[in-house]
Amino acid sequence: MKINPIPHQQVFVIGAGMVGSTAAYTLLTREVAREIVLIDVHHELAHGHVVDMNHASAFTSGIQIRTGDYSEIRENDIIVITSGASQKSGEDRHAAAENNVKIIKEVLKKVMANGVGVYILMVTNPVDVLTYVACKESGLPSSRVFGTGTALDTARLRYMLSERMQVNPANIVAFILGEHGDSSFPAISAATVEGIPIQNYTTFKQKYIANITKEVREAGYKIVEEKKATYYGIGSTVADIVEAIINDKQKVYALSCVLNGEYGLTNLATGVPALLSNAGVKVLENYPLNDEERKALKKSSEILQANIQKLGYR
Amino acid sequence: MKINPIPHQQVFVIGAGMVGSTAAYTLLTREVAREIVLIDVHHELAHGHVVDMNHASAFTSGIQIRTGDYSEIRENDIIVITSGASQKSGEDRHAAAENNVKIIKEVLKKVMANGVGVYILMVTNPVDVLTYVACKESGLPSSRVFGTGTALDTARLRYMLSERMQVNPANIVAFILGEHGDSSFPAISAATVEGIPIQNYTTFKQKYIANITKEVREAGYKIVEEKKATYYGIGSTVADIVEAIINDKQKVYALSCVLNGEYGLTNLATGVPALLSNAGVKVLENYPLNDEERKALKKSSEILQANIQKLGYR
Amino acid sequence: MKINPIPHQQVFVIGAGMVGSTAAYTLLTREVAREIVLIDVHHELAHGHVVDMNHASAFTSGIQIRTGDYSEIRENDIIVITSGASQKSGEDRHAAAENNVKIIKEVLKKVMANGVGVYILMVTNPVDVLTYVACKESGLPSSRVFGTGTALDTARLRYMLSERMQVNPANIVAFILGEHGDSSFPAISAATVEGIPIQNYTTFKQKYIANITKEVREAGYKIVEEKKATYYGIGSTVADIVEAIINDKQKVYALSCVLNGEYGLTNLATGVPALLSNAGVKVLENYPLNDEERKALKKSSEILQANIQKLGYR
Amino acid sequence: MKINPIPHQQVFVIGAGMVGSTAAYTLLTREVAREIVLIDVHHELAHGHVVDMNHASAFTSGIQIRTGDYSEIRENDIIVITSGASQKSGEDRHAAAENNVKIIKEVLKKVMANGVGVYILMVTNPVDVLTYVACKESGLPSSRVFGTGTALDTARLRYMLSERMQVNPANIVAFILGEHGDSSFPAISAATVEGIPIQNYTTFKQKYIANITKEVREAGYKIVEEKKATYYGIGSTVADIVEAIINDKQKVYALSCVLNGEYGLTNLATGVPALLSNAGVKVLENYPLNDEERKALKKSSEILQANIQKLGYR
Repeated sequence: MKINPIPHQQVFVIGAGMVGSTAAYTLLTREVAREIVLIDVHHELAHGHVVDMNHASAFTSGIQIRTGDYSEIRENDIIVITSGASQKSGEDRHAAAENNVKIIKEVLKKVMANGVGVYILMVTNPVDVLTYVACKESGLPSSRVFGTGTALDTARLRYMLSERMQVNPANIVAFILGEHGDSSFPAISAATVEGIPIQNYTTFKQKYIANITKEVREAGYKIVEEKKATYYGIGSTVADIVEAIINDKQKVYALSCVLNGEYGLTNLATGVPALLSNAGVKVLENYPLNDEERKALKKSSEILQANIQKLGYR
Repeated sequence: MKINPIPHQQVFVIGAGMVGSTAAYTLLTREVAREIVLIDVHHELAHGHVVDMNHASAFTSGIQIRTGDYSEIRENDIIVITSGASQKSGEDRHAAAENNVKIIKEVLKKVMANGVGVYILMVTNPVDVLTYVACKESGLPSSRVFGTGTALDTARLRYMLSERMQVNPANIVAFILGEHGDSSFPAISAATVEGIPIQNYTTFKQKYIANITKEVREAGYKIVEEKKATYYGIGSTVADIVEAIINDKQKVYALSCVLNGEYGLTNLATGVPALLSNAGVKVLENYPLNDEERKALKKSSEILQANIQKLGYR
Repeated sequence: MKINPIPHQQVFVIGAGMVGSTAAYTLLTREVAREIVLIDVHHELAHGHVVDMNHASAFTSGIQIRTGDYSEIRENDIIVITSGASQKSGEDRHAAAENNVKIIKEVLKKVMANGVGVYILMVTNPVDVLTYVACKESGLPSSRVFGTGTALDTARLRYMLSERMQVNPANIVAFILGEHGDSSFPAISAATVEGIPIQNYTTFKQKYIANITKEVREAGYKIVEEKKATYYGIGSTVADIVEAIINDKQKVYALSCVLNGEYGLTNLATGVPALLSNAGVKVLENYPLNDEERKALKKSSEILQANIQKLGYR
Repeated sequence: MKINPIPHQQVFVIGAGMVGSTAAYTLLTREVAREIVLIDVHHELAHGHVVDMNHASAFTSGIQIRTGDYSEIRENDIIVITSGASQKSGEDRHAAAENNVKIIKEVLKKVMANGVGVYILMVTNPVDVLTYVACKESGLPSSRVFGTGTALDTARLRYMLSERMQVNPANIVAFILGEHGDSSFPAISAATVEGIPIQNYTTFKQKYIANITKEVREAGYKIVEEKKATYYGIGSTVADIVEAIINDKQKVYALSCVLNGEYGLTNLATGVPALLSNAGVKVLENYPLNDEERKALKKSSEILQANIQKLGYR
């Protein structure tokens, strides 16, 4: 009797900088994937990280991490793209856009060379623009191409609220939406703490959200000042997202999604609440926004659309 | 009715370099401890790491990570010491010894200021010498002071064997023992693969161990060449060890232990098989060594004892 | 140096029927507690279960399960009470009340004999009445005495909604509140699916909740018809609740809580949204109820208060 | 772009008695499989268990458990067979053999109706005989058909040793081999505790193994006396084995394997050390047995071969 072997989803992490390697290490440590492949044009760097992590893998239940090649990509594998120049202290997130578009297009060409349907998780900044580019260039359906978007910003928001209100972050539903950048905004009018409107929660105080938008937006910059780069927060974000796909968790994140009319928007990718499963991403329509939040989403979207067009996409 | 609150074991990670911060991140990600405190003389660096990790904690079940102060140390807390100058590429592990002894003595004074019984896990190199120093200076029983020793070397050995023999590293019992340094040696004469003597295992070949000693010993140096520092392997080693204490796992590692006659040795700490539980560390006597291995242990011990005496201890 | 050993929270499961033994087995399998003690007046039954589970413990990381004695209860241990006559098919939940009050009072006397502050999780029915009795008889603060209440009913509600709406149950916030019995009611007017009002969720249909109250209320009876008793649902409920205490998860359940004015109610215990941590239980005030739900809570409470008074408590 | 959906391995548990339902519940609770299907000729019983467990699934990350049909079996699914008359107190394990062979042949016909290659884990007794029958009747390769064999007996042995020697059962490598029945025997001459020969281990005493064979063999009978049936130990054994397949853990168990010359034996299935991965089972050759143990294996094998032949197989 001929029996086909069981395929398992490999996770390819493209780019072995601190973000890529921390993402790979978190995938390994949390035992999210059975096999992780780290690829970088600086092969020595990728190799050094992999060897370091191989020794860590002895403390897991046999997770494999290795260097590899694009040609090993199979259908339904998950491709995490972290390549590109990282943001410098003080630098605007869009500054390096053009350069990173070029790099990402090269990566995508290699990713899609086998012509098989994969999942693409974009991490490189400007993440919204590059998610849109990746969807167009890859030819994959929009359910298969998404970016970390404002997922980390949202984690920061929830952490800050949880600390002040003395509750578990997992109990809080509140989002940062829009561009992962200066035009992001908190969608907090309908925020709940385990189903209780946040304003009614006994430990909530109005002042907790007064400066929180600014604080969330600046969190990344501050970390860069203190330790040159951020990688633990984003590494955990990536691992959690990949786990939601592999284990079909139907979990909701503020992901950068290519919109096809949801929230009245098209021709861009931006951070919106989205359900993630092994069917890919599904934009959650009808998340309650008040007038101010709707305006903020519109304004943020216009900025992103302008940036996308400047790069020659529409 | 007066009820005392339930104490939980805090883990203090001293030193926020790449080793300390990766260890803290792994403790967080694996959800080993409920509360992790990161301390460094460079407060900004520790703070930056903590803020970065706070955002990661939103993806855990509410693990707390924070900066803090030695004065918060309570009985039975676990102190992971990673402070000190890290090893430079090509540099001998003993070179920085004198300087690190000075740093560690300062740290120990602060750790023991409250006069409560804690666990000390030494990570800083030369780890065997500093474990011995920590035991003497702290006044803690030898069951409470131990170093990572050859635990990482052992993980490397098992990984290398597992890869060649196509088995799970968890199925292999084989150790690197002695000094965490150039006089370490593999204790492989009694190695087993799930109870089968390794030589009898169907996928074993003699050539697999020919160069493995050298390879293991050089693994750290090679990683340093490729990516400047090693931190993932040691970070996972630390997290696994701390978990064995907190969860009382009675797990065996090659830890640097202060010996009181076991294997005929005294007046040093060196890497030997040891059982770790919430009662601390217990040297495993009677691990089978052949003549060659006994000689190697003796020789390695003499080197360590000489180094300890040069630093004014006995 | 004298060092006090680290106390760990033991979980005592009182009653080794199918509910008690399944709860103990789930605690073991999920590795929630390090040490589980099963006690029953039928010592042979408890012993048989423990021996059967000891063999299961070989597949955990060394969790201990054993028979034991009330005298071993220490401060902060968790006491899960499942003793008493179980509900027969078709029988009203209050029928066996008087008999079970007698049994539970005996158990409580033994539990409190050492005079130390423990956590009491009541599972025996009628759970609301017995939770109230346990609080009064034990002299423990109301934060330390609570019952499974409508936590399982709530799990059933969420499962049924999740199945129809094709979402993960963890994404749904909706509760069954009030008496764990015929006067329970769904608090669904403010239900959300990851923060989206349930009515706005794309896959929601009004008909999904038309008969769901009845269906949830009858779920237990139906299982009893098909397989004589329910134990898996309640066993998992107990394990999840105990884990929230031990791991300080600040998780929200519909627990049976002794009310001290919350929701305008006193002199009873009933199912309300409550936050569970290692500080015990805290009733969540301000959960949004509409007029109909408020009336249902009032009516259910009056039934419970009458039952409590009939048993000589107030 | 056409993309094939990702297949996931379904686990079919055939037989909804206490063993089958506990196995299914353990698979659910440990979150081993994403989808579990429970099948029984008594459809009401299977349905009652499934509904009870559905409520438990609300406390997992969305694991699905459902009733179903053999026709839903797909390639690489895992079939756990627990059907058949269970052993009565005092009854010999072989007494019900003929009857169970008939039942199992019916089950196998339905399992193989789709003609796809699955994994078969036999649990029904006499497990060794039925494993052999299942391999012959299904036409599957011997790597795909195996029984729980002496895996539970081995767990019992390790638990008993661990308790007496005060070590973690996971640190002990020792097996019960041969028939899962009265001719089983301990393979203890080469037993190790984390690589140390058991006789050299400081807490070992010779008397610990004097009566342990008898004790292990009688453990099942005793539990049956005290609580009518054993199900927790075997339920955990099944879940652990299934997890080793799904997560490709390369873990070693004493499984009932069809032998093709290993240990000099053919024409039977019996309990031998075997490596389990997603490639199925691989008999571990060369596990060290002393003369007495070799004789015991031979004798046990002859009994099994006779039983197999009596049932018309060879």
